[in-house]
Amino acid sequence: MAKLSSRITSITSGGSDGWEVFYRARTMIAAGEDVTELTIGEHDVRTDDSILDAMHHSARGGHTGYALVPGVQALRQAVADRIQTRTGVPTGPENVMITPGGQSALFSAHMAVCAPGDTALFVDPYYATYPGTIRATSATPVSIQTRASDAFLPSAKEITKAAQTHNARSLLINSPNNPTGSVYPRENLEAIAQACVENDLWLISDEVYDTQIWQGEHISPRALPGMSDRTLVVGSLSKSHAMTGSRIGWIVGPKDAIQCLIDLATSTTYGVPGYIQDASLFALQQGDALEEKVAAPFRRRRALILDVLAEQNTVTAIPANGAMYTMLDIRATGLSGFDFAQALLTEHKIAVMPGESFGTSAAGHIRVALTVDDAKLSVSVRTLCQFAQKLAQDRTHAS
Amino acid sequence: MAKLSSRITSITSGGSDGWEVFYRARTMIAAGEDVTELTIGEHDVRTDDSILDAMHHSARGGHTGYALVPGVQALRQAVADRIQTRTGVPTGPENVMITPGGQSALFSAHMAVCAPGDTALFVDPYYATYPGTIRATSATPVSIQTRASDAFLPSAKEITKAAQTHNARSLLINSPNNPTGSVYPRENLEAIAQACVENDLWLISDEVYDTQIWQGEHISPRALPGMSDRTLVVGSLSKSHAMTGSRIGWIVGPKDAIQCLIDLATSTTYGVPGYIQDASLFALQQGDALEEKVAAPFRRRRALILDVLAEQNTVTAIPANGAMYTMLDIRATGLSGFDFAQALLTEHKIAVMPGESFGTSAAGHIRVALTVDDAKLSVSVRTLCQFAQKLAQDRTHAS
Repeated sequence: MAKLSSRITSITSGGSDGWEVFYRARTMIAAGEDVTELTIGEHDVRTDDSILDAMHHSARGGHTGYALVPGVQALRQAVADRIQTRTGVPTGPENVMITPGGQSALFSAHMAVCAPGDTALFVDPYYATYPGTIRATSATPVSIQTRASDAFLPSAKEITKAAQTHNARSLLINSPNNPTGSVYPRENLEAIAQACVENDLWLISDEVYDTQIWQGEHISPRALPGMSDRTLVVGSLSKSHAMTGSRIGWIVGPKDAIQCLIDLATSTTYGVPGYIQDASLFALQQGDALEEKVAAPFRRRRALILDVLAEQNTVTAIPANGAMYTMLDIRATGLSGFDFAQALLTEHKIAVMPGESFGTSAAGHIRVALTVDDAKLSVSVRTLCQFAQKLAQDRTHAS
Repeated sequence: MAKLSSRITSITSGGSDGWEVFYRARTMIAAGEDVTELTIGEHDVRTDDSILDAMHHSARGGHTGYALVPGVQALRQAVADRIQTRTGVPTGPENVMITPGGQSALFSAHMAVCAPGDTALFVDPYYATYPGTIRATSATPVSIQTRASDAFLPSAKEITKAAQTHNARSLLINSPNNPTGSVYPRENLEAIAQACVENDLWLISDEVYDTQIWQGEHISPRALPGMSDRTLVVGSLSKSHAMTGSRIGWIVGPKDAIQCLIDLATSTTYGVPGYIQDASLFALQQGDALEEKVAAPFRRRRALILDVLAEQNTVTAIPANGAMYTMLDIRATGLSGFDFAQALLTEHKIAVMPGESFGTSAAGHIRVALTVDDAKLSVSVRTLCQFAQKLAQDRTHAS
């Protein structure tokens, strides 16, 4: 085979990425074993029939030809309205480009602000694709480490230090956060925003979990002083409307940035299916009710997990104020998140993600996705806690 | 606004791109004028209802969650089978990645083989997005000029010269060709293949018009000696199945290249909607009959145009052996393609694309898309020829 470009051969960093537990669980399931999967951020419901019917209506109605590359005007307007209503920032369709999913928006945003060789900052722990996405743009990913004791919030001081050391061009944040469930509070976001202004950083704000807030409020940093001209917001209907498979999202940002992003989209995707955009418009038009219906199970299950955790004191939760995950501290067991997850899968056929899958900051933790029914989740987390207690006790006796 | 990356601000080359005629026609139509549009490569039929019904069946059946990033296995297999049957090259699902459209495949292929700063060759005249696609990957586009007298076929000698001058990494070709309608004959493809082997070039072969052959045969260069290890084939259901808006395509290539392309897709698109893939599988399962049904109007209209052209000798056609376009030589009028197209739109409200929209090689030509009904096309081309004759006569008298 002729030689491939170095950029494509180095998108994955090589070596273990901590996803062995996930793949082992899938293999066990394929072999017929009864494994409880608490690994992946995918709803246990399908996309609502009403949305799918709207899509079919659009397709059979003839919206099967090329759609405009930046997106159907009515959908751009609906996204702009939604953002303006929720954040107060003046937003028009010219500030919105529709993308084939949030991942495409993340990639395009980094393409827009980083040249090859530039440094792009991101926060550890992180959603699995972040460093690879930055590497795919030929930029260099540099992580901002965080601590469980700070609910994994990034410190502005660390951001400034990294920005200056690496002459960074951008910072990627994600609140509500995957994998930690943290919701960045206002004072933290204000400090981050100030660091961005002072160091001339673009802020890429991944807000795909913005409808999943269990405590506190969602603040979009684009609404903070001086930020609307240096923030690209990544949004999506995947999590808010259980439309993961439809690959529909957006970027919101300054008009001139959107104009350049349209040139990029012309060269990279050539737009998004019109009938999916029409279905998405229908979904947004259903307003808060549908979003709350989709979010409700996660709200309920998060409360349920906190109740189970209150029964013991070996396993503790990082404040899980949003998103469809809780991050649990299992350091009392003396095991790494990875070893604990492997042992839990072997002993109890419960699959969770090791904190190490998401970088180094969440070592000694595990992520539990709230994506199975309440009863099963409750039993599984209780089993998990008892397993951790036993490990912790064995350790105490051994020492 | 904070500064954008140089790569995204330079995707368009700036200045006129020759699409003024197209936009002027659109403006006239929006103002209520009766313009005949022969500009864009979009079918005058919608996607077949049976395909849309298959999509709805899949979506309502629950295929609304994340699909596997490289594509649904059954679709990868169906594409592999189709390619193997038509080309004879052993092809399995591991040689196929499903992409959200042919444009995404073009971009991804260049990302895979060119590092930032590398040179990527392409053939002029070219499909509008080619140079921007290469620039979006931070590679440098260098065109291979061609001549109308050679039916716009690229010469292997020119390719070798450009490859050596620029130390190029890749060559992009497109047969059947947009905008010229040329189908590259075997001996031309063999010479191109030899130039690729001798100069260690990847060949990116855009074959999205492979079902639209009116004369001769479609040869995939991946089937030529030594080429399967250095060819990435770009395919799509857009043109073959009138599914332009569904954004569904693929890349076929060496297994190791596909593996890296999957890493790229994980970072750039995160896959393609499962229900669109199921609909595409259904479409491919309909076999040749559906493809011929979609291609038939273009075959008929191309013959019809040749009949009209035979009535006069001012306007001549480049051998239009494939694709949904004919390229007409209007140099006898003394006008550029651009000026002729503008005048034709003004005088007769017929919109065609100037050859200059597709680079410099097709100056003095216009591209006619075969995308209106037979009667209207026939009348329009006859009017066009009479208009050209009059211009040519005026010119003779004036000189």
